[in-house]
Amino acid sequence: MEVTHIEHIGIAVKSLETAIPFYENVLGLKCYNIEEVADQKVKTAFFKAGQTKIELLESTDPEGSIGKFIEKRGEGIHHIAYATNGVQAALEDAAGKGIQLIDKAPRKGAEGLNIAFLHPKSTFGVLTELCEDPSKK
Amino acid sequence: MEVTHIEHIGIAVKSLETAIPFYENVLGLKCYNIEEVADQKVKTAFFKAGQTKIELLESTDPEGSIGKFIEKRGEGIHHIAYATNGVQAALEDAAGKGIQLIDKAPRKGAEGLNIAFLHPKSTFGVLTELCEDPSKK
Repeated sequence: MEVTHIEHIGIAVKSLETAIPFYENVLGLKCYNIEEVADQKVKTAFFKAGQTKIELLESTDPEGSIGKFIEKRGEGIHHIAYATNGVQAALEDAAGKGIQLIDKAPRKGAEGLNIAFLHPKSTFGVLTELCEDPSKK
Repeated sequence: MEVTHIEHIGIAVKSLETAIPFYENVLGLKCYNIEEVADQKVKTAFFKAGQTKIELLESTDPEGSIGKFIEKRGEGIHHIAYATNGVQAALEDAAGKGIQLIDKAPRKGAEGLNIAFLHPKSTFGVLTELCEDPSKK
């Protein structure tokens, strides 16, 4: 697999409204997009820091994965997303090397990206996302 | 404060030796440096993914912060480090905005960087590092 850069870091927060001012007023980043991803039961806010985005994730359903994460561990860093050319091929490559997949095929994520997750059991506790921007193919 | 990019993401692992092959053989990143930071009671391994480094952290002392982190939460993402021009000024700026500091002044971190941490109580659960490369000043 070839990783070009870190596309984003996903951070679980209880409330976008209360967390956004820290990123804007303290770190000086600008929130350029707020988007609901119904499929993942989250509302997301995006900031850009160089090549990499910060994606804040607020749960819209306590039974969703972010709701459960916050209930279990509190607010904090949730996942790292690596940009790669060809998520499907990357998944097959990872599976062939014994990595447990959460998604066997790419699905649509925020911002129109094709995304898939590797299971943290295979990745030393880090929920690892692979993604590609289909508009840049 | 002005953040230019994400300098690195710190990830706590039980063993560099067992985690490095995932980053090299699955993600295709290259470990270019292994360094012990005695002050922080860790041994670190660095990889580059675009502008941002992955810093794996193995504890060298169960009483150190990484040892305690792994004991409490298991392996996983530990902190995000933002590159900024002038850590001292950034700390004063953050403190002035009510952010609780772990370090009131920059200290030396891995790779010769000047670093300082903000307290996760003030940053929505994310241990947040600010850093600057004094050789690029």
